[in-house]
This record gives sequence, C-alpha cells and structure tokens, in this order.
Amino acid sequence: MHTVPLPPAVVQDAVARALAEDLGPGDLSLAAVPVDRDVEATIVAREEGILCGRPFVEEAFAQLDGRVAIRWQVEEGTHLAADGTVATLRGPAGPLLSGERTALNFLQALSGTATATAEMVDAVAGTAVRILDTRKTLPGLRSAQKYAVRVGGGHNHRHGLFDGVLLKENHLAWAGGVEPAVRAAREATPHTVGIQVEVESLEEFRAALAAGADAVLLDNFSLADLRTAVAGNRGGCFLEASGNIDLANVREVAETGVHAISSGALTRDLASLDLSMRFGDQTSG
Amino acid sequence: MHTVPLPPAVVQDAVARALAEDLGPGDLSLAAVPVDRDVEATIVAREEGILCGRPFVEEAFAQLDGRVAIRWQVEEGTHLAADGTVATLRGPAGPLLSGERTALNFLQALSGTATATAEMVDAVAGTAVRILDTRKTLPGLRSAQKYAVRVGGGHNHRHGLFDGVLLKENHLAWAGGVEPAVRAAREATPHTVGIQVEVESLEEFRAALAAGADAVLLDNFSLADLRTAVAGNRGGCFLEASGNIDLANVREVAETGVHAISSGALTRDLASLDLSMRFGDQTSG
Amino acid sequence: MHTVPLPPAVVQDAVARALAEDLGPGDLSLAAVPVDRDVEATIVAREEGILCGRPFVEEAFAQLDGRVAIRWQVEEGTHLAADGTVATLRGPAGPLLSGERTALNFLQALSGTATATAEMVDAVAGTAVRILDTRKTLPGLRSAQKYAVRVGGGHNHRHGLFDGVLLKENHLAWAGGVEPAVRAAREATPHTVGIQVEVESLEEFRAALAAGADAVLLDNFSLADLRTAVAGNRGGCFLEASGNIDLANVREVAETGVHAISSGALTRDLASLDLSMRFGDQTSG
Amino acid sequence: MHTVPLPPAVVQDAVARALAEDLGPGDLSLAAVPVDRDVEATIVAREEGILCGRPFVEEAFAQLDGRVAIRWQVEEGTHLAADGTVATLRGPAGPLLSGERTALNFLQALSGTATATAEMVDAVAGTAVRILDTRKTLPGLRSAQKYAVRVGGGHNHRHGLFDGVLLKENHLAWAGGVEPAVRAAREATPHTVGIQVEVESLEEFRAALAAGADAVLLDNFSLADLRTAVAGNRGGCFLEASGNIDLANVREVAETGVHAISSGALTRDLASLDLSMRFGDQTSG
Amino acid sequence: MHTVPLPPAVVQDAVARALAEDLGPGDLSLAAVPVDRDVEATIVAREEGILCGRPFVEEAFAQLDGRVAIRWQVEEGTHLAADGTVATLRGPAGPLLSGERTALNFLQALSGTATATAEMVDAVAGTAVRILDTRKTLPGLRSAQKYAVRVGGGHNHRHGLFDGVLLKENHLAWAGGVEPAVRAAREATPHTVGIQVEVESLEEFRAALAAGADAVLLDNFSLADLRTAVAGNRGGCFLEASGNIDLANVREVAETGVHAISSGALTRDLASLDLSMRFGDQTSG
Amino acid sequence: MHTVPLPPAVVQDAVARALAEDLGPGDLSLAAVPVDRDVEATIVAREEGILCGRPFVEEAFAQLDGRVAIRWQVEEGTHLAADGTVATLRGPAGPLLSGERTALNFLQALSGTATATAEMVDAVAGTAVRILDTRKTLPGLRSAQKYAVRVGGGHNHRHGLFDGVLLKENHLAWAGGVEPAVRAAREATPHTVGIQVEVESLEEFRAALAAGADAVLLDNFSLADLRTAVAGNRGGCFLEASGNIDLANVREVAETGVHAISSGALTRDLASLDLSMRFGDQTSG
Repeated sequence: MHTVPLPPAVVQDAVARALAEDLGPGDLSLAAVPVDRDVEATIVAREEGILCGRPFVEEAFAQLDGRVAIRWQVEEGTHLAADGTVATLRGPAGPLLSGERTALNFLQALSGTATATAEMVDAVAGTAVRILDTRKTLPGLRSAQKYAVRVGGGHNHRHGLFDGVLLKENHLAWAGGVEPAVRAAREATPHTVGIQVEVESLEEFRAALAAGADAVLLDNFSLADLRTAVAGNRGGCFLEASGNIDLANVREVAETGVHAISSGALTRDLASLDLSMRFGDQTSG
Repeated sequence: MHTVPLPPAVVQDAVARALAEDLGPGDLSLAAVPVDRDVEATIVAREEGILCGRPFVEEAFAQLDGRVAIRWQVEEGTHLAADGTVATLRGPAGPLLSGERTALNFLQALSGTATATAEMVDAVAGTAVRILDTRKTLPGLRSAQKYAVRVGGGHNHRHGLFDGVLLKENHLAWAGGVEPAVRAAREATPHTVGIQVEVESLEEFRAALAAGADAVLLDNFSLADLRTAVAGNRGGCFLEASGNIDLANVREVAETGVHAISSGALTRDLASLDLSMRFGDQTSG
Repeated sequence: MHTVPLPPAVVQDAVARALAEDLGPGDLSLAAVPVDRDVEATIVAREEGILCGRPFVEEAFAQLDGRVAIRWQVEEGTHLAADGTVATLRGPAGPLLSGERTALNFLQALSGTATATAEMVDAVAGTAVRILDTRKTLPGLRSAQKYAVRVGGGHNHRHGLFDGVLLKENHLAWAGGVEPAVRAAREATPHTVGIQVEVESLEEFRAALAAGADAVLLDNFSLADLRTAVAGNRGGCFLEASGNIDLANVREVAETGVHAISSGALTRDLASLDLSMRFGDQTSG
Repeated sequence: MHTVPLPPAVVQDAVARALAEDLGPGDLSLAAVPVDRDVEATIVAREEGILCGRPFVEEAFAQLDGRVAIRWQVEEGTHLAADGTVATLRGPAGPLLSGERTALNFLQALSGTATATAEMVDAVAGTAVRILDTRKTLPGLRSAQKYAVRVGGGHNHRHGLFDGVLLKENHLAWAGGVEPAVRAAREATPHTVGIQVEVESLEEFRAALAAGADAVLLDNFSLADLRTAVAGNRGGCFLEASGNIDLANVREVAETGVHAISSGALTRDLASLDLSMRFGDQTSG
Repeated sequence: MHTVPLPPAVVQDAVARALAEDLGPGDLSLAAVPVDRDVEATIVAREEGILCGRPFVEEAFAQLDGRVAIRWQVEEGTHLAADGTVATLRGPAGPLLSGERTALNFLQALSGTATATAEMVDAVAGTAVRILDTRKTLPGLRSAQKYAVRVGGGHNHRHGLFDGVLLKENHLAWAGGVEPAVRAAREATPHTVGIQVEVESLEEFRAALAAGADAVLLDNFSLADLRTAVAGNRGGCFLEASGNIDLANVREVAETGVHAISSGALTRDLASLDLSMRFGDQTSG
Repeated sequence: MHTVPLPPAVVQDAVARALAEDLGPGDLSLAAVPVDRDVEATIVAREEGILCGRPFVEEAFAQLDGRVAIRWQVEEGTHLAADGTVATLRGPAGPLLSGERTALNFLQALSGTATATAEMVDAVAGTAVRILDTRKTLPGLRSAQKYAVRVGGGHNHRHGLFDGVLLKENHLAWAGGVEPAVRAAREATPHTVGIQVEVESLEEFRAALAAGADAVLLDNFSLADLRTAVAGNRGGCFLEASGNIDLANVREVAETGVHAISSGALTRDLASLDLSMRFGDQTSG
C-alpha cells in the first residue's frame, strides 16, 4: 500500500545534526550575496535512479527559513530520468545557498540506496522473495537508510537488537546448543518478536527447525543446499539466504524458493546518485 | 607529523547515537547467553586495506562496559593484510555481543574511506599534489569521514561553510561579479580564512586571479587548460582541480602541476572494508 | 535464564533527568552540613515486596560522586522482608543526602511495579500463561517500567509501535477488513515482527485466524468464549486475553488455556513500595 | 485566580521523550491504513474525575502533524462525567493513530493525580488547610505531576532541593543541633526561600521554633500533639503535618489547625483515570 | 560554613558547551606538536583578586583527557596575589594546549565576578547587610555566575522566576493593587517561597507591609527614605535596597539598616581577572 | 555589505538555555496576573550605544508564545539614543512578563559588546586597520559575542581552534622551531585556513616571515618595533598587533600600518548597555 513513514522527530534530528556540521557558527559566503533576494532553484538529476529523501530536503530548508517553498516534480520512490528536474525551489537566496549541500547530501545518499535496492528487487521480479537489508548501516543513519530500502521496494530486516532475535554461532555455543538458546530467547522475548537462528550447514538448519525457530538465516549456502533446505522446510519456517549475493546471482538464489535474501552491501556500501542544484534569478512580485 | 585527532566529545556523541539506534530499549538476544562470562574475541580483516576507526571502537565498548579491554595489533592508518588479526578483545560476553555490530560499522566504513583515499594518494605518489575531500559527505558523519581521509593520507578541504569560503557561480552573479564578490567575502571573513573561487574557464580563472582570490577551483578543466592555468599562476594562488577525476586519470591531472585534486566520491560513495569479529571462549583466572 | 538488562545509556539518561529536576541549580540544604564527612546509610524496606531498580540507584550516586560505595543485601528481583535492610551505602554526606530522594523514587516505583507483577504471576503459578504489560505506561518511564515487569517475573508485550503490530478496530475498518489489514501489515513489516489482531467476538476471532494473524488479542471475552477460542485455535496462534482482569479473576482466565494475559494496570497504576534511607555516622579510618 | 502554567519547553520535552519511546524508528501499523485519510476521533471518560493534561495532548499531536485540530469539551481542572466526551479531534488518520497512546498516557496519569488531589482537598473543605505534594514523585515527571496537583486544587511543596530547605534528622545532627543548622541554612539561602525543620516530638518542635524556623514539618504527630503544637505556635510559624494521613483521617488532622497536610501518596502512587479514544470516519469537505 | 556546591551535571554541561565551541571538529594546531609528550604548565595570576572556578577547570581537562593532573596552590574563594601561581598542571601536551583557553575563560570570568563581589562585601564589612546578585546575568551562565557571587562572599537573590516571587509595578497594576497581588501570589506559591514587592515610594512601602509581603525591594530610595523605611519596619519584613548603588556609596546605604543591597552590575557587567597559563617542559619518569 | 547572520539553530539553542535557567519549572509570579490579557510594552534605552541582539529577543518571545508581536524602531547595528524607544511589543501579559528578563539580558549584553567594539572602530576611523576579537569569550556565548563584534563594525579573528592556526611559544618550542612548526601546521591544515605565528620580538618576526607564515601576531611590540615590522613586511604577510591596547592608544597603534589590532577586552570584559522594558495596557480590538 505505502511505506511506513519516518516519525517527524527522526527526520528533524537527522537534519539538525547535518546542518550543524555544515554551518557551524555561520555561513561565511553569505557575506558576498544579498541574502534576502527572492530566487529560484531547481534540483536536477545527472543520472537515472529512484528518488528518495524528500522529507529530509523539506526539513532542511524549513529549519533554515520558513519562506522557502518546494514544488516536487517526482514522487518519492519513483523513477528519475537523467537530466530530469526533480524539484523547483523558491525563496530567499541566503537559506537556499546555505541549505543546498545538506539537502543534496541526504537526497543523493538515500536515492543511491533506494536505487541499489530497486535494482536488486527488479532482478528477482516475478518471484515472491523479499530483498532485505541488515544492521550493517552507516552509524547514525540507520532509520534513514532503512527508509530508503523500503522506498526502493525492499524490506527491512530487524531495525536493531530490540525488535528481532538473531542467534548466531556464539549465542548458540554459550547457551549450550540450539535448543536451549531458542528456548531461552523465546522465554524472554515479547511474543510479537520472532526468533531466528543463523546456520552454516544443513545439519544446523535441521537443528534450528527442531528447536522451533521462527526463521532461519542460511549463511553462505550453495544453491543445492538452499534447495534442500526449502524442500525440507515442512513447518513453514521463514528462510533467509545471505552471503556473497549480488546482482549477478540474486535471481538464481531467489529461484531456490527461499523467502528472503539479505544483502549487507545495500546499506554498508553506497553509490550516491548524482544530483545537483541550479540557481536561476527571480524577481519577486 | 601526525593526524589532527578528533575531540573526545565528537567521538562520544557519534558512538552514543549509533549504539542507541542499535540497542534501543535492550538487546533481546542477551537472554540466551551468560552475559557476565569472560570471553575473548578478535577483529579480523577479510580484505586488505588501511585501518581507520580505532577511537570509535574503543568508545563503543567503553560506553557499554568499562571491563572490556582491547589490544590492537594494527596501528591506525597502517596497512591491513587480508585475514590478518586487527585486534583482540576480552571482557564479559554481554557487552561484546551487544557492541559488535556498532563497533564494526564504524571500523568498516571509516577503513573503507581511508583505503579509498590511500589508493588515490598512492596514485599520485611522487608529485606534490594534495588529494582533497569535499562537503559531499554522509549526513551526520562529516567529522568521522574527514578524519578517515586524513588517516588515509589525504587532506581536508574546508569542513563546512564556516572555515573556508568557496564562491560559486551564483555567489558571483548575485554579488555583481568576481571582483565585488571576493572583496565582500574578504571584508567579512576572518583573516585566517581564505577566499576561493570556482571557475569553469580560463577566462574566469584570470578574473579570479585579478580579483585576488587565495585559491581557485578549476572545475572540469581539460588537461591542456589545467596546464595553461598552472603556467599563468604567477602570484602563487592555490590551484585545485575537480570534476570527474578518478584513479584512472588522477595521475595525469596531478602532473599538470595543480596543488590539489578534490574528489567528491571519496566521502559521497563508500565501499566498506570487510571486517568481522570472531569469538573464542576464555576462562577467567 | 536472566532478565534482558537495560542498556547503560537508558539508565544514565533516566537518572540524569531525575537528578536535574530535584537538584536544579543546587541543593540548598547542603549549606548546613559538612559535605565531605564520611558517613554510612542504609536503605530499609518498610513493607515486603520484590526489589527492583538497583542499576538506577547505583547510577544516581555515581553521577553525583564517584566515592559513594553501595553494598546490596538483596538481589534484584528477589523478595524483600518488611523492615529488612536492602543496602548499605558509604560515602561523603553531601552526595548521599542530595541523591537520597532520587534513588528512592526509582527504587520504590520500580519495586512497586515488580511487586504487583509478581503477585499476578504468583496467582497463575503452575499454568503456562504469560503475564504481559501494555503500552499504558508513565510517559518517559517505559523502558524502566517494562524492566520492572520482567524483574517481577512478567513478560513484555511489544515495547512500542515499532516492534510489534497490533491491528485494532480502526486499522481493520480503514484497511477494508481483517484480511487486507493483515496482508498489508505483513507485507510492510520485518519478518521478525509478528502481526496481532484485536478482536471483540468469536466471529472476529475466526476472521483473524483465517487472515493468518500470528497472535490475537481477545478483548473482554467471557470465560466461555475464551475456552471456545482456545479450542478452535488449531494453527497455534498466540492467544492473549485482556480486559478487566485482576488478581481476583486472573487464575480462572489463565485456566482457559490462553497463552497470555495482559494487564494495563501493571504499568498504568502504581503502588510504590515503602522504602527509606537511614543515616548513621562513620569515622573514616 | 489560576494555576501557574508550565513553561512550553517543559511540556515539549516531556512529550518528545514519550513519543520517542513509543514510536522509535516508526509506527509499523501505519502500513495497514490510509495515513492521510481525514478522520474524526473523540476522547471519552470511562469514569468520573478531574481533567488534567490538555497541554500535553495538544503538544503530542502538534509534534506529529500540524493538521490535527482539537476541540475540548471540558475545561482543564473541572469535573469529568463518566462516559462524557472530553474532546473531539480531527485530522489525518496516521498521526491520530500514532499519537493516541502517548496522548492518553499523559491525560490518564495526570487526571488520576488531579482527581486524587481533589478528593483530599474536598475532604478538608471549609478548613483553611493546604493539601501539599512532596518530592516523592515519578522520576522525570515531577513538573507534570506537580502541575496536576495544582490543577486538582492542591498546593505544591518545594519543587526540589533548590527552592526550599527542609532540615531533617541528619542535617540537624551533623550541623550540631537545630539552632546551628537553621543558622547555617539561613545564612546560605536566598532570602526568598524559607527554612523548614522536620520534627518528631513536641520537644523538637519547640527547639525548631526557638531556632527561628519559618516552617515546621510535624512528622507522625498524634492529633493531641498536633493541637498542642498549634496552640504553642505563637510566632506564626507555618505548620505542616505529615505521616500516614489518608482520606479517612485527613479531616480530623485538618481540624487541629495546622496550615498544611502533605501526602506522599498523591504523587508516589497513581490510580490513572480510565480514558479512551474512539475513532469515527469523516469525509473531508 | 561553606558554599552550596554546584551539581556535577551543571558544571559538566557548561564545560561541554564551551569546549565544543572552541574545538569544533578539531584543534588544527595540534598538527605541529607531539600531542603525547608529558609536559607541565602553571596557571598564574597577573593581577590580584579572588579565585573562583576550580571545578570548571578540572572538568575541562577531565573531558579532554583523564591523564591531566592538577595541583591547586590557592583555595577556591581565597585571595590571589598578582604574579602568584594558582595551579600546576601536568599531562600530555595535546589536551593541555587544547583546553587552555576554555579553562582560563571560566577561571578569569568567574574570578572576576567573585572579586567584584568581594570588593562590595568588604565595603560593608562590619554591618549585617547582605550583598545580593540579581537575574541580570549572562545568558546560559546564571548558575556559574551565582556560584561566583557566593564564592566572593555575596548572597544569591532568587535564581529565577521559580524560587522567589518579586511583584513589580505591572504585576501589581494588573492584579488590581498590592493587596490582591500579594494574596494571589501567596495562594499559588509553595510555603517555602517568599513574596517580595518592589516599591518606589514610602507610600508603596507601607502598602506592601500592610499586604503582608515577606520582603520589599526599595528601588532608588534616598538614604533618608531608606532610614524611614527601616524605622517603620515593625514586622521584621526583609528590606532590600537597589538602584545605582556602587562601591562609592554602598557603605552609607548599608548603614541605613536595610538587610540587603542588590547590584545588577555584579553579574551584568564583567571585569575578568587577568590569568594565564605558562608551559614548561617535563620529562616523564 | 552586511553581517554574516547566525544560523537559526545557534540562536534557538542559546535562547532555550537562557529561558530554562530563568523559568525552571514555572514562573510563580504569573499567579498574580491575568496571563492572557492583551498588553503592550516598549523596550527603551537608558543610555546611548549600538543595538545588537534582535534575533535573540524575537526568538525568546517566539519560544514562549507565538502571539507576541514585535515592532522594532531601531535597526540592528545602528545608533541608539539615550531614552529612545527600541521596540514595541504586543501580546499576552504572561509571556511578556516571563520573557522580559531573558530578552533584555541578551540585548543588553550584546549591545554592550557591539558598543565597545564600535568605540574602538571609531577610534581608528580613516585607517584601514581591522579591530579584531579573540577567543577570550564568555563560555557558551562565543557565537553570540562574535556576532556582536561584527554588528559593532569589528572583525572576527578565528572562531576557535578549528578555523585558524595560531602557533604560540610552546607550539614552536615543541615542534623544534618556527620553521618546522609552520611546515607541520601547513601540511595538516586545509588550504582554506591560514597559519599565523605569535612573536614577541623583531627577531622572531623575521623568523616567522622566513618560515612562510600567512599572518603574524606581534605581541606587546613597541610602536617603534611595530613600524619596523611593517616596513620589513615585504611579502604582504598579515600583521596583527595585540597586548595592552585600549581606546587611548589604539589610534597610534593603527597608524603604524599594521593590518589589524586585536583586543581581548572586547569579549572578555563586558559593560552591558542599560535597557529596560516598560509595560502599558492595551485593550484588544
């Protein structure tokens, strides 16, 4: 239907920090220009992709000056043509110049993540598989990046350590095995939160099923082993594949029948979309 | 001599935000493990590169539990071998598990930036050119990213709008030309801060020199035009080249004699270094 | 095994706010006493209950003065005898006097919640039912209160709107029915988070089962209807009963076979445990 | 005349924290509903009491979305009928659903405190006695709770350690007696702040009077001793009774002639008022 | 006995803000020095005065580096000789250089306020009059400045609008006169907080007494009128004189018998004490 | 052309802190007045000077109540006549009374700094010299004070340790001399930031020139030595004089031909401008 929106405070806080690190005690270059002159600017795309980050752009200019007006030409989450106009802005020259870089930094980074996500989602089109993000995110930007994954058509894995349980090798070892680990986690966890186990072999996979895991992360499984796991998944456990999956091989992984494929690269790496702002003059009146 | 260190508060604040977004109201998976068990872990590199981010890793575990001890095997800013051990950690299982992802997220992102910087620095080895970052950074991470550029052997351009003046097309137009723009900026700016002008042609370059700019950004100049600019730079103005410069062509740009080459990609894009943490048991004693 | 601990930052932040509202610009009564005098104090219980809040007490004195030492006589989550000694504190008179009220306010409130929880847990002893909290909490104290519920032997429902989905009457109506609501929520939600539906009749219950809900909240059901629901719950959906359940009737609700019983009163109302601090002198030596 | 209002920043900060703990990175259930649909809702009382908390409800929705409009049917501090409508809200479905719980949590908690206060105030109607709160408050909610006491017709004791001096047993002992303690406190305290002494016997009461205390706290005095104290209070010292005073005996304590009666239970315990929000549809037009 | 100390959080917060505005993203000059070299420094006074601000200096270096050690040669609040050594510091060169200016800014400003206060206190030596500060303080520094006034031997007036009531011309006018204003304020104010009335004539003074004010501010009274007020003050109301009182005339005002004299200049104006830090080398060993 | 404006967040944060320290949990004196009464007030100057601080006054009332309207009679940075009206305010009595002191504290302090700056600027009228501030500022108020210096016609030196390098005696000593210090600083510093050296003799001055410093601080030079330095400054190095320069001797220092004169007293000391607010009634209509 639509993407879960970010709470206003999350956007406000991210933007306030970004503006502070760019403006510090003041934008010295404003000394050279008539800060109240009414001007117009356009945000244009230099390459194609998926637009993401409109709420951050709006917030950036709103925090600088309530008089800046933005008219978007492209919907959040839709396709952006190379050299297309993304938005038209109008307002005083001062805040438009001071906010330009911060606004673009959000827009180009989040559009980059949304675009990378959409490429992987497109690669598995027609299958029922979910493309998932991970907790390998840029420190301080997790909410924004996970929003970009959603906007790009992907799905979020757990946000953090509090809204999902993923038992890894060491949890299992220190708990005394898969079964006691799943039992202890289940006992302590809200019933709204599922228990997932990371496994590295079919043997471990079967142990996780036997222990009653809600989901299993099949890490670095061969295609054959993934198919075996899917075939043996009688109870409807949620199966997620991960490990060295990229655009080249994601479709064949998807076709094994797993429910989801997670990719750390979606949020750990970043190829920002190339966007820029162009200014034009405008007489008020 | 050495890299300007980050103020403690900058590191503390970045780490606190990152931990909060990962831990939220609590790490549910701790229910499955003996949180006070004394364990050992190692951070290992899965690919080679330049290590960056030690202060962030130390701070992450310090904020979780004062009992975690870290012994580094690799100096900040030095080369990391694939499959080499980066550090050994020892402490209670709880904070080591809860802090793992946050610590690695800093280390892999900043090492990725330092490594990319070092590659470009290496490509111009033997020339006197500076490899510069820009203000195209990830929102909220500018101080950390610019630190990684320094650690990788690069140089920082201005941090933000407050410690350097870069007059672009629109500043110049609205100020009434290059000369009045430089004059107005100079008049309003601390004498410790220089005035740089962005130009797109040799004609504009000469106007910037005539206006007394301290530095000029030669944007998208051909190699020939860069050489012409260098030859005509009698007053010792600082010359920075930018625009579509990558590993493939950076050396020939450097050999034109410009003082610096800036690359937005260094901090706008990111290829994180592949690092992981492995746990081993340890009896206290 | 043990209770999920609160992240240090959650405790630090709650304590810092509480100290600030009590101390403001300074504790005027310190003018009357020798602030550095080495003294001893004991925290004593005036009524029996379950102790909860030790990390908050430790943090309160740590924020005031690192020299205050606390020796606990009672474990977190265990039974407290009326007139029993809870802890012995030793340190300078100043911070002990200034921190007394803040420390006790945490301890008496959280012990009150843990005690109320334990009473309800005891009332269903021998059944497999979980006693659950809700989101009806005291503003700003949710993490602390949910910790107290865990310490008291209860279980947490979702922490907030982000780690569980509970579809209520209006979600269902505006989504066009139970089935499309569950489908839309499932589609947008991480696979680690379950979808629960609130129902007020057996008919709605069956619709929720048919729509594939992971859990159902049976609101204000009669005992007979709860039994009917349990009997008809073939797929193992998680069944939670709520609505006007108190110590008097919780056991008969539990004996219907539901998996959990939630009680808003546990965290919405509060009967603090009566605790006090008594000072005794001590010569340093 | 009217109640001292809370500063806007106090309300904003309390609401921001409460929304953050409920919404975290986002309200997942919004995925199921048309978030921009124009809807109407009503807040209704399920039991009678005194309404308190309107500024917090207004702030909660204002922080989520400026388009939510609230029409109150009941004045702050006035009587609420069981099943009466408290307010009508209109706005987009998204923020109304996301803000419901936070708004109600404030309203039900503060109305609970105001109602409990009003009951005690009513019990001493016709006497001149003040019903006072204490510093036994819920951590982080002191300003809000003390506001609720005022709204309920009660009076505030000092807010914290900075706007009143209350010398207790240990201050007196370590200062070397009542007289030196009062003298030292008076000497160091702004003349706008009074010095109160807590006493547990008539003998101590007389010593406090002799030492020139502005107020005395008569702790756990019998009715007879309270009357003796009142009779012997020639200088007009402010007399406050405390200790095990509840609705059953507050009137006879008031009739001893003391100026004020303080009750820790007013803010240490809490019986929230039962309020709920009901949604109805609304076509925009 | 001693001065009410500042709560640790007040000092920490003031220092953190000051360091942030000086260090920003980093101290560039550290590039030129061996930051870990063990060095020694002394803080010396260039003029005589009263020392104030030690907790701020300690906090500044503690926030930068736990290895800096400070040995004070002069007690807080005592006399400083011109050219005398105030303290010796030892630690790494980096944090000593980076923290020098912030530490000195606190010390010179607060010592300046303490010194100015002490001069006025000395001028009324032998009388019982209190020298008071006001709310005319430097924004954000009120707690620190009022602490300096106490350290200098002065007394604090109310800290802000919450710990004292001062009814001025407009409060009185809008309340319908002195008597209703005092009554309304008394009714709404904690009994620990006094009601003071500002008056500009003997007639208004008598009205304030009749209304039962606890204190009166005699603004811009002649010496004769002050004496008349003192003589007519039968009920022991606290009398404060203010308005154009300086070192030259403070003693004759004090000798009229008023209880206190307030001076806005103490905290509104500032003559910082001249202090500096001198570095000397030190080999570790 | 105009003064670099402060970023909105800088003003908002400074005002929020100032209001919080004055209002705390609430303005008790509001109990005596009709808080919603529509009233008018004027800010008047009691002495002449330069107005500075309008954005802070506007922000103070905006944070308290959006209904307060301000009409300024005097432009920021222009001359204020003694007894002239600075501004007319209209709005509810409550916020006008509660915000009065905070608004005036900003306005009188910043106007005081702007006025002192303007006096020194006037004293060197006709010369080309810049009057500079320093880092000797009031902790937490640096941005505001440096803004006031600009408004008063002065120029800012570096804001902090991050936007300029000033190498002092110890940097030079520990770096092994002027030349290596300048080289190390230059190497590590963005090219937009200049390297300045502090010298105390002509010999050191010549060494600094030889080392290629961009600017030199001539500390405590005699007029003769300043003239010698100016005469020997062939490369156009920026020359700043400092040390015991005041209104009496600033002109003769300026006439030596230095580029700038810095004065710590401008921001280290403060003579606030005498301003007050007068209230008048107003019927709404």
